[in-house]
Amino acid sequence: MPDVVFPLDSTKKFVDQEKLGHNRWHPDIPPAVTVKQGDSFRVHCREWFDGAIVNDDSADDILNAPLTTVHVLSGPIAVEGARPGDLLIVDILDVGPIPQEDSGPLAGQGWGYTGIFPTQNGGGFLTEQFPDAYKAIWDFSGQKATSRHVPGVEFTGIVHPGLMGTAPSAELLSIWNTREAALIATDPDRVPPLALPPEPQDAILGGLVGDAFTRAAAEAARTAPPRENGGNQDIKNLTKGSRIFYPVFVDGANLSVGDLHFSQGDGEITFCGAIEMGGFIDLRVDVIPGGMQTYGVSENAIFMPGNTDPQYSEWLAFSGTSVTLDGEQRYLDSHLSYQRACLHAIDYLTKFGYSPEQAYLLLGAAPIEGRLSGVVDIPNACATVYIPTAIFDFPVSPTKAGPHRIDPGIGAPRSSF
Amino acid sequence: MPDVVFPLDSTKKFVDQEKLGHNRWHPDIPPAVTVKQGDSFRVHCREWFDGAIVNDDSADDILNAPLTTVHVLSGPIAVEGARPGDLLIVDILDVGPIPQEDSGPLAGQGWGYTGIFPTQNGGGFLTEQFPDAYKAIWDFSGQKATSRHVPGVEFTGIVHPGLMGTAPSAELLSIWNTREAALIATDPDRVPPLALPPEPQDAILGGLVGDAFTRAAAEAARTAPPRENGGNQDIKNLTKGSRIFYPVFVDGANLSVGDLHFSQGDGEITFCGAIEMGGFIDLRVDVIPGGMQTYGVSENAIFMPGNTDPQYSEWLAFSGTSVTLDGEQRYLDSHLSYQRACLHAIDYLTKFGYSPEQAYLLLGAAPIEGRLSGVVDIPNACATVYIPTAIFDFPVSPTKAGPHRIDPGIGAPRSSF
Amino acid sequence: MPDVVFPLDSTKKFVDQEKLGHNRWHPDIPPAVTVKQGDSFRVHCREWFDGAIVNDDSADDILNAPLTTVHVLSGPIAVEGARPGDLLIVDILDVGPIPQEDSGPLAGQGWGYTGIFPTQNGGGFLTEQFPDAYKAIWDFSGQKATSRHVPGVEFTGIVHPGLMGTAPSAELLSIWNTREAALIATDPDRVPPLALPPEPQDAILGGLVGDAFTRAAAEAARTAPPRENGGNQDIKNLTKGSRIFYPVFVDGANLSVGDLHFSQGDGEITFCGAIEMGGFIDLRVDVIPGGMQTYGVSENAIFMPGNTDPQYSEWLAFSGTSVTLDGEQRYLDSHLSYQRACLHAIDYLTKFGYSPEQAYLLLGAAPIEGRLSGVVDIPNACATVYIPTAIFDFPVSPTKAGPHRIDPGIGAPRSSF
Amino acid sequence: MPDVVFPLDSTKKFVDQEKLGHNRWHPDIPPAVTVKQGDSFRVHCREWFDGAIVNDDSADDILNAPLTTVHVLSGPIAVEGARPGDLLIVDILDVGPIPQEDSGPLAGQGWGYTGIFPTQNGGGFLTEQFPDAYKAIWDFSGQKATSRHVPGVEFTGIVHPGLMGTAPSAELLSIWNTREAALIATDPDRVPPLALPPEPQDAILGGLVGDAFTRAAAEAARTAPPRENGGNQDIKNLTKGSRIFYPVFVDGANLSVGDLHFSQGDGEITFCGAIEMGGFIDLRVDVIPGGMQTYGVSENAIFMPGNTDPQYSEWLAFSGTSVTLDGEQRYLDSHLSYQRACLHAIDYLTKFGYSPEQAYLLLGAAPIEGRLSGVVDIPNACATVYIPTAIFDFPVSPTKAGPHRIDPGIGAPRSSF
Ligand SMILES: [Zn+2]
Ligand SMILES: [Zn+2]
Ligand SMILES: [Zn+2]
Ligand SMILES: [Zn+2]
Ligand SMILES: [Zn+2]
Ligand SMILES: [Zn+2]
Ligand SMILES: [Zn+2]
Ligand SMILES: [Zn+2]
Repeated sequence: MPDVVFPLDSTKKFVDQEKLGHNRWHPDIPPAVTVKQGDSFRVHCREWFDGAIVNDDSADDILNAPLTTVHVLSGPIAVEGARPGDLLIVDILDVGPIPQEDSGPLAGQGWGYTGIFPTQNGGGFLTEQFPDAYKAIWDFSGQKATSRHVPGVEFTGIVHPGLMGTAPSAELLSIWNTREAALIATDPDRVPPLALPPEPQDAILGGLVGDAFTRAAAEAARTAPPRENGGNQDIKNLTKGSRIFYPVFVDGANLSVGDLHFSQGDGEITFCGAIEMGGFIDLRVDVIPGGMQTYGVSENAIFMPGNTDPQYSEWLAFSGTSVTLDGEQRYLDSHLSYQRACLHAIDYLTKFGYSPEQAYLLLGAAPIEGRLSGVVDIPNACATVYIPTAIFDFPVSPTKAGPHRIDPGIGAPRSSF
Repeated sequence: MPDVVFPLDSTKKFVDQEKLGHNRWHPDIPPAVTVKQGDSFRVHCREWFDGAIVNDDSADDILNAPLTTVHVLSGPIAVEGARPGDLLIVDILDVGPIPQEDSGPLAGQGWGYTGIFPTQNGGGFLTEQFPDAYKAIWDFSGQKATSRHVPGVEFTGIVHPGLMGTAPSAELLSIWNTREAALIATDPDRVPPLALPPEPQDAILGGLVGDAFTRAAAEAARTAPPRENGGNQDIKNLTKGSRIFYPVFVDGANLSVGDLHFSQGDGEITFCGAIEMGGFIDLRVDVIPGGMQTYGVSENAIFMPGNTDPQYSEWLAFSGTSVTLDGEQRYLDSHLSYQRACLHAIDYLTKFGYSPEQAYLLLGAAPIEGRLSGVVDIPNACATVYIPTAIFDFPVSPTKAGPHRIDPGIGAPRSSF
Repeated sequence: MPDVVFPLDSTKKFVDQEKLGHNRWHPDIPPAVTVKQGDSFRVHCREWFDGAIVNDDSADDILNAPLTTVHVLSGPIAVEGARPGDLLIVDILDVGPIPQEDSGPLAGQGWGYTGIFPTQNGGGFLTEQFPDAYKAIWDFSGQKATSRHVPGVEFTGIVHPGLMGTAPSAELLSIWNTREAALIATDPDRVPPLALPPEPQDAILGGLVGDAFTRAAAEAARTAPPRENGGNQDIKNLTKGSRIFYPVFVDGANLSVGDLHFSQGDGEITFCGAIEMGGFIDLRVDVIPGGMQTYGVSENAIFMPGNTDPQYSEWLAFSGTSVTLDGEQRYLDSHLSYQRACLHAIDYLTKFGYSPEQAYLLLGAAPIEGRLSGVVDIPNACATVYIPTAIFDFPVSPTKAGPHRIDPGIGAPRSSF
Repeated sequence: MPDVVFPLDSTKKFVDQEKLGHNRWHPDIPPAVTVKQGDSFRVHCREWFDGAIVNDDSADDILNAPLTTVHVLSGPIAVEGARPGDLLIVDILDVGPIPQEDSGPLAGQGWGYTGIFPTQNGGGFLTEQFPDAYKAIWDFSGQKATSRHVPGVEFTGIVHPGLMGTAPSAELLSIWNTREAALIATDPDRVPPLALPPEPQDAILGGLVGDAFTRAAAEAARTAPPRENGGNQDIKNLTKGSRIFYPVFVDGANLSVGDLHFSQGDGEITFCGAIEMGGFIDLRVDVIPGGMQTYGVSENAIFMPGNTDPQYSEWLAFSGTSVTLDGEQRYLDSHLSYQRACLHAIDYLTKFGYSPEQAYLLLGAAPIEGRLSGVVDIPNACATVYIPTAIFDFPVSPTKAGPHRIDPGIGAPRSSF
């Protein structure tokens, strides 16, 4: 186990830890730790809501989840000698739930959660169909997860960090704020919002204090979207064994990481669709000087995924096209096509006894794959979603005999305003 | 080899064959052949342009490709006893290029093509960046393809039908025409168009003649988009060993198939991005009576892909977000995110010596995977594209040593208006 | 499809074909055809018994199978410029059953067979437990095989040539004959024999005639064993996409091929354990001059298997050690360990309703994997056999509920002296 | 993390720990701990030589390794209610090196070792060719291992317990001793020995003391061989996610485990061919009452391997037949065939610059696969060994250009008597 450069104590809140991380992007946040090129090190990560979501059978915590507090990130980690224009190589050596703690009140202590956020507090991919709050608790047993709220399935986690990235430069931050403000301005009162402007409330900015804090908090970018620096990409294949190449925008690169997921389906469709948890991640860093120019990587991470993901040989797949549920034809809208493919999968699973929200939670958390299958056949994009059949403990393919009916159990807890 | 129920002679045009297929969707097109439930049979397929694209070093044929003639489809094949509301099970037993003919003037005779269509004649996924016509010819050797126009790569084909589907009912056809007309009406002069209305010119409707032909040709749907009946889904994983479940909308189901691809990347991004060819497909059909209701499959195919695709253990991946090249922030636009990811991949490959159009053609034709990685992190969707590194005959990952430079050879033929 | 350089007519016996192959190894057999380095070409192959085994429900043909007639091989194929000391590169571009012929009396015409040979006529891996003759007929549907004699299973074929190799030099042939004669001499009357000496009866030696034939037939090596030249290696992974490197012992290399298998388990344990058939194989050849010395390959093929084998993600495995069924401890005998592992698998499968011979036939024909797991832990070697659970159409893993019972159907035909 | 039921302190010798394990098999060894059916729990494991092998550049410790002390095992663990005749289900939830200790003097603290044992102290698979002692130290970085003694390779570990099994009954123990004594009697002075008789010296028997200890030590079985109870099977695929079914011979089943390996090739060919280490293993146990009879599992484990092993898509394979290096023909000897295949692989790798012992150590430790390819083609069995090409950081396949030469570095330490 490499040295822990960013330790966390599971019993303390994020702001009471030995080292203070951050929950906004800003170039002025000073490094919490500095490492050398070639170093391997361990970083502890807090679950993204800092413990606000609990292991119970109510969705009230999801309903009222404090979105201004997220994502609590570990870092920044400065890499000696990294300069703007370089590519930062990050190897994920290992990643997992909180080590040596398999029970307790904090996600990552032997359990994690998936939430469907209500339309009025975040929403999600299918928020029109699922406007209320729902939650599923997943229990970890070794590599596998099961849920009392979604019976009949068990799957091996593809553990990964939902969020990792380098610090933006002042110039890049300004670009973000400008372009996102312009989008918000097109419909400022939309619920859920089109984007999230800087929000000083609940901002945590590591070592920044006083005026520097106040100034930075007013302009620091929210962590929800993935951007040029990587960030909240929620790529489920960034698991152990992966190598990522991040653009460097500030001296030291200033890498931060958090939002660990025990498992996630492509798209993380329920918003908090992954199985959220705290835990650890072991990283090794290196630098390709001038790599951004050399390799034409001006923005967004490129990466090579690991090769130890669980293998499945049988999948059940659903397709969707860019026609709305109301029958309106849209033009090559792969986002809509994927919504329709997911809704088809949900419709299908309800025939086996699941409630729609159980099926939705399952698609968010299980290792499903979402593909852009056809993107040019005007006017319909075709997207597909693949579910590995082995995660079910009953036969799930269509047959002349009709669907096997499961007992849906207690169902997924629901809360609404 | 099962019996050939829809034979084609490579030396004759589509309209001069023993059995006449069709290139539009319409419920009145009579079956060209009828099979029983449980039957296995072979269908010959013509390449989608009926031989208009040739094996040479010019892109003039792509520039002037007769889009009103596509797709030439084999069928309809009626399945005895299939009724509206059933699910039609279609097993792809085998699929490949034209058997026993490995050289000749027709795509499928030992070769195939990928085209980038010009903006004024179809366009494509990245038509703003690539407004002209380009072509790549691929030569088949056993399971593998290489191209004189895209050197340095060789890959095993994932052969599949780009287009397969059941006939629409009159009601369904009417819905299509209504909703697509509404879309077209929002910008009727757009180039390329938003959608394609019915087009009597060059319509081929199998056994329909006289008034029936004229009436049907005026309302028959174009085959470009995938729709509720399956159709031009261009799902690269529908390869041999796959089982597909199609909704049935008319008596007999009336299955048609065509647009065979030797290989394709997820999305078929260059419009004619697959390696197009003629060939054969062996199918077995069966029926789940009432399956649409039983399994909640009211539209769009569901399927189980085969398990003999080539396996790759190392991938190089690129990510993109929903910000335009001009820096405009869009709201959760996965389609745009995938465009940006693909453009990143193209930028990267040019550093190794490829021209941008060579890289674009490669992404269309090779077994790349396109994923919807994050669809909820407002305002940025995150899409990713994965390229198997083993298809290159040189090291293609980023290193401190910098990129290996290839000889791009004669390049991809280009034509423009 | 590449040119057919060695054609066969399914309606004619091996000796009545346009080109005459051979069924013994001898350096004097002249090439039946000559190709150039870099050439791709197609070779037809006759099933190894030249049609003596038929598609019926009797095992009499296995009981009396004419072992002196095998293996009927296509070739020799001379490669221009290949010299002793070179490595011959052979790419398997494609391989399959007899094209365009899916029904008929010859194995390869839509069907194949697996035989358990009786102790008095060949024997097999478990001949002490299975002294009689049994047969299973397998029907091909696309890539998949099923059998009326072994119900409840269906699997995708890993088609491969059981036998391919280069001609031996006179010196190498002499070594073979000397060392095998010495082994036979240790127990000359053993049934089944320890090895097979040269056998002029039923020898076929291509273009050799007269005295040359008589002389060669007296010393030509039988084709049963794999040897330095490759030969009857029965490696199930030599499927399409594979590249093999053979040592070259004579001018032209003189490659021969036959004994095609639709599928086989590791070890081909029932002797004729594969699914035997005739068919075609497309090859491309090249030469590494002096490659034997350069790469230290003085004997036996080295190879790189293809990457399109069916993928399985769940396996049921059995282990065995080197203790005989009578309880005698042997010293590190992996061969015995594998026998014990296979017997364990057979015992297990009988609990589900299979007869022992059905289970044995299945292990020979299905894509099972046999591993040398431990070879140093004195005195017990540990061998393991892995069965993909997906080939069964019922759940086959141990549970508290006990085994699912299948209907074994008509069983495997049996014949005995 | 489940509760630790068998803790170990890395700083203390095996006999000084809080709980005392054992290094012999005997039914009278009392359980060290008792668990319930369905329980999950963690067990610490000591490396098999209890720390006698150190992280340095000498092979003296291998030369003089105290073989009478092995294997130090954790357990027995009794499972409440398990009875003779049952099947014990053991799920491997997780397994890895010593947690939270990545450096230190004990194998498992961030490093492990592979040894070639000298002929006079254990020997190995190829002891005739490699009579001296050699050692390689492997460093762990996340999931991957590299070695200063074997440069140019890096691979992901397939972590597994080399040894796990249930306690024998008194009757079974007696059978072992009788049959192994009979084998030893055929050549009692052989070096290395044919088998290992009971050895009171250095015997550790958990809670047994006094006369009970003395009596048991005289008859307790050595742990080297795998036997009916599982034991030292060294099956590299028993990694996390695996489910094993062990026969139960005594009340409580009395499971023991040890001999953890970071990685191993099929066969563990250098005797101590795996990468040996201490660490932890998380298990969950359950029972199928009467399962031995129900499923026909009278002996030897059956198992279902996990599905998260590293995936490789390109392999280089070598074949061997049952002819000795001296040219003597043996009868269907798969053990010999595998030796010849491994020797071919070693010869090949030396052409790239490795010393023979580096190549041998590599084959023992890396995730190579050993297959029983042909076991019936008299007189030659065919065995094959597959090496994943991706573990090398240089191209390792044969080409016309000849082999890439590596710098073998300091080589593998060697010691001899
Ligand atoms: Zn996230
Ligand atoms: Zn998250
Ligand atoms: Zn298409
Ligand atoms: Zn197409
Ligand atoms: Zn054979
Ligand atoms: Zn054979
Ligand atoms: Zn061991
Ligand atoms: Zn060991």
